[in-house]
Amino acid sequence: MFGKSEELEYVFNPDSVAIVGASEKDGHTRALVNSRIKDSLFLINPEKKEIYGYKCYDSILDIEEEIDYALIRVPALEVPKVLEECIEKGIKVAHIYSSGFSETGRNDRIELEEKIKELAKGEIRLIGPNCMGVFSAESGLTFKEYSPEEEGPIAIVTQSGTFANYSLMDSEERDIRFSKVVSYGNAIDLDCTDFLEYLKDDSDTELIILYIEGTQEGERLRRILEETTRKKPVLAMKGGLSKHGRRAVSSHTGAMAGKSKIWSSIFQQVGVVQVKTYEELMDTAQALIRSPIPEGKGTSIVTPSGGLSVNMTDLAVDIGLEVPEFGEETKDKLRELIPLAGTSIKNPLDAWPSYFSGNMPDALEVVASDESIDSLILDFRLSIPYIKGQFGEDYKEFFEEFVREVADACGYVKEDIRKPLVVSSPVSLYWDDEEREQQKKARAILREEDIPIYPSIERAAKVLYNMYRYYKLSQEREHSSTQQT
Amino acid sequence: MFGKSEELEYVFNPDSVAIVGASEKDGHTRALVNSRIKDSLFLINPEKKEIYGYKCYDSILDIEEEIDYALIRVPALEVPKVLEECIEKGIKVAHIYSSGFSETGRNDRIELEEKIKELAKGEIRLIGPNCMGVFSAESGLTFKEYSPEEEGPIAIVTQSGTFANYSLMDSEERDIRFSKVVSYGNAIDLDCTDFLEYLKDDSDTELIILYIEGTQEGERLRRILEETTRKKPVLAMKGGLSKHGRRAVSSHTGAMAGKSKIWSSIFQQVGVVQVKTYEELMDTAQALIRSPIPEGKGTSIVTPSGGLSVNMTDLAVDIGLEVPEFGEETKDKLRELIPLAGTSIKNPLDAWPSYFSGNMPDALEVVASDESIDSLILDFRLSIPYIKGQFGEDYKEFFEEFVREVADACGYVKEDIRKPLVVSSPVSLYWDDEEREQQKKARAILREEDIPIYPSIERAAKVLYNMYRYYKLSQEREHSSTQQT
Repeated sequence: MFGKSEELEYVFNPDSVAIVGASEKDGHTRALVNSRIKDSLFLINPEKKEIYGYKCYDSILDIEEEIDYALIRVPALEVPKVLEECIEKGIKVAHIYSSGFSETGRNDRIELEEKIKELAKGEIRLIGPNCMGVFSAESGLTFKEYSPEEEGPIAIVTQSGTFANYSLMDSEERDIRFSKVVSYGNAIDLDCTDFLEYLKDDSDTELIILYIEGTQEGERLRRILEETTRKKPVLAMKGGLSKHGRRAVSSHTGAMAGKSKIWSSIFQQVGVVQVKTYEELMDTAQALIRSPIPEGKGTSIVTPSGGLSVNMTDLAVDIGLEVPEFGEETKDKLRELIPLAGTSIKNPLDAWPSYFSGNMPDALEVVASDESIDSLILDFRLSIPYIKGQFGEDYKEFFEEFVREVADACGYVKEDIRKPLVVSSPVSLYWDDEEREQQKKARAILREEDIPIYPSIERAAKVLYNMYRYYKLSQEREHSSTQQT
Repeated sequence: MFGKSEELEYVFNPDSVAIVGASEKDGHTRALVNSRIKDSLFLINPEKKEIYGYKCYDSILDIEEEIDYALIRVPALEVPKVLEECIEKGIKVAHIYSSGFSETGRNDRIELEEKIKELAKGEIRLIGPNCMGVFSAESGLTFKEYSPEEEGPIAIVTQSGTFANYSLMDSEERDIRFSKVVSYGNAIDLDCTDFLEYLKDDSDTELIILYIEGTQEGERLRRILEETTRKKPVLAMKGGLSKHGRRAVSSHTGAMAGKSKIWSSIFQQVGVVQVKTYEELMDTAQALIRSPIPEGKGTSIVTPSGGLSVNMTDLAVDIGLEVPEFGEETKDKLRELIPLAGTSIKNPLDAWPSYFSGNMPDALEVVASDESIDSLILDFRLSIPYIKGQFGEDYKEFFEEFVREVADACGYVKEDIRKPLVVSSPVSLYWDDEEREQQKKARAILREEDIPIYPSIERAAKVLYNMYRYYKLSQEREHSSTQQT
């Protein structure tokens, strides 16, 4: 066998791939047939002669070429035989997609899983069973049709296949791209720690997202996480925090979920930011890779709404942020910029007149320069009926110019003042074509400045609070390492 | 003057309306010009001869016809003069849209507000200042272009104008319609209690949403709320719960926010369901008007995802629900319906194979019949790439038939088993035309069965928990009234 890092190279960057149980009806097969790996792809299906122009082999042993990586998609009971053939063929890594093992809770299936584990030991490395497997932007390996082709700085290690699927499906919506995504299921051989150990030193990966339900090697995971967070941020979600959730874990991947307090305390100690939802994970990653880190809890909410700004403030405080008063200097400057009626020079800045008087960019810069402000949320709900209500039918040119000015100011806050700014702007399925195009255009302009956009103030505030938690964890680590030396 | 209920009739159903300070550039004017009230509408603007084909009067006193309701949209300093003219003309209700009064915190503007209050006393009823005013589906009165024309069962009483605007803008997205919406701002005369007193007996209103920052007449509000909740559900959000939020309140409507614990305890005592966000208010209203009420915390999550179901369970428990194990009879029935591989007969029901085998409707009915289950969340993320991955390019016919079967089962759960079922299904701005059309079609089919749809499990779970809270409050009221008799 090989050294571990070499083995993991076969996981993410195999030179050749075989699908055992390939099918025309299966999205996984179609995804690989259309991927960059297609010229070194081999299909095995004894019942077919040809699929998508590929010759179908009866067995992996019939292939003459060397194969690095096998995707096994046959019924659970047939997996042992296929695995024996993979070992005979000298394949380095087998990804067992099939489910029907320990997660069923049935004794015969638990034994079947044990059998596979024994077969593989020292002969071949396994991913799974009961998982989606690997996406690697570099090699083209994927489990999903229409997955993003561009490489990105985020890696995902997840025990849930749906999580892996959703992350690829949502990449445009969330404006994030991935280096590697691995869904590892029941983890009878390669476990999350192995993938983390590889990704820790992977130069294509700047941030790691982890979804974990349980592990057999807690102490090693802890050590690797500690080493990883010294190099790049790790965001984690632990499945099975509640009693009901733990019961669900045992029937999902067969893992033992463990006490939630122990997990939370370990994450805290090793500098991992633990969050509660899939959305929060993806939302936070989106900002963490492209924004400065807030060095405090003080946030400013800039909004067109007086009334909702009160509720937004309550929400942000509930989440853990503070919405402090501006300093006198800031207030004086803002008073010059914003006319009297209907506004108040306070934080939250209920600045709707200045939204359209051209003062918005200046107001953002003044607010961001305040010492007590560590981050900003811009409430940017600019629907076309609203814009038309202000400016009539000829709003288009104005609108684009306005958004560009605001985006420039956001970019300035981020790049020059070095404080994170996120935008909150909801999305509707029922917008007409005109509205949708304008909304996309506005977002595209903000994205050019790398400004993260969320559909609610609540989600925006959670992101800023999680980024602040990341800052605190980093500070604590630095502090403790200074003490040790 | 008139009796109170007669006065409030002039608020919601005036026979004639005048806009003082009408303008072509103003959405409010355009909204009324295009409303059902247009034939009894009069515009006042001394600088214009004509706006949208309407003759412009120099003063309200120049109009010969009787006027019930005046919308005042002139700068704050001009309001006293206009108000004197309105009184002279014998107008019943004036809505002062203009801002620039006590909410600015400036002494001269606080005095200006006092002056208006004195002028009006006993002469004319006032809405505002600093607010959007009134939407009434019955009369056609509105403050917003493109507001929904159909009447609906929900009334909103809000101190925030943005809240009122958003509620009308979002009505299609949220599939809710309104009887009356009133944004009342600084409340120097008519306060939320007055509007509530009217809506309590309004036969067009089945549910009331309240957003309040503060009031001068706490004891009367408490009494009216108590009377109201005996007749229809009231959902409330209190602005200014946090210290930072209270500071924001004083600069928004000039109200004293009061201690948050006192408010929460009053809401609890009078049977009002208090929630934390705008989304939660609208989401909960949407389900409460069209679903049975859950009589317990036990929910079942039916989902295609194993891994995320674990996290969904943690989330639901975190929100306050329970995700109990199914009874043995339920498990036996489900085992017959759902094949082994990759699923587990547990709650959450990770039932993805049965999504496409035609067993989903039966599974929903079996789950809903379980004694420990009081409500259901159906995770229904059916994107086209996913459907195509299962069924190839010819998915359309299948898809519609499948959604219709599921919708029928949802309707059966609601109407016959009498348990609430809500759907979670996310929305993306970046869906292509095909995806968007399919998603809208699927939602339209579910909406035919009056099934509420939310973009996340978290929001769906909050709705079910809030409905359970409503159930508990109703039980407590019944219990205490039984004890009293």
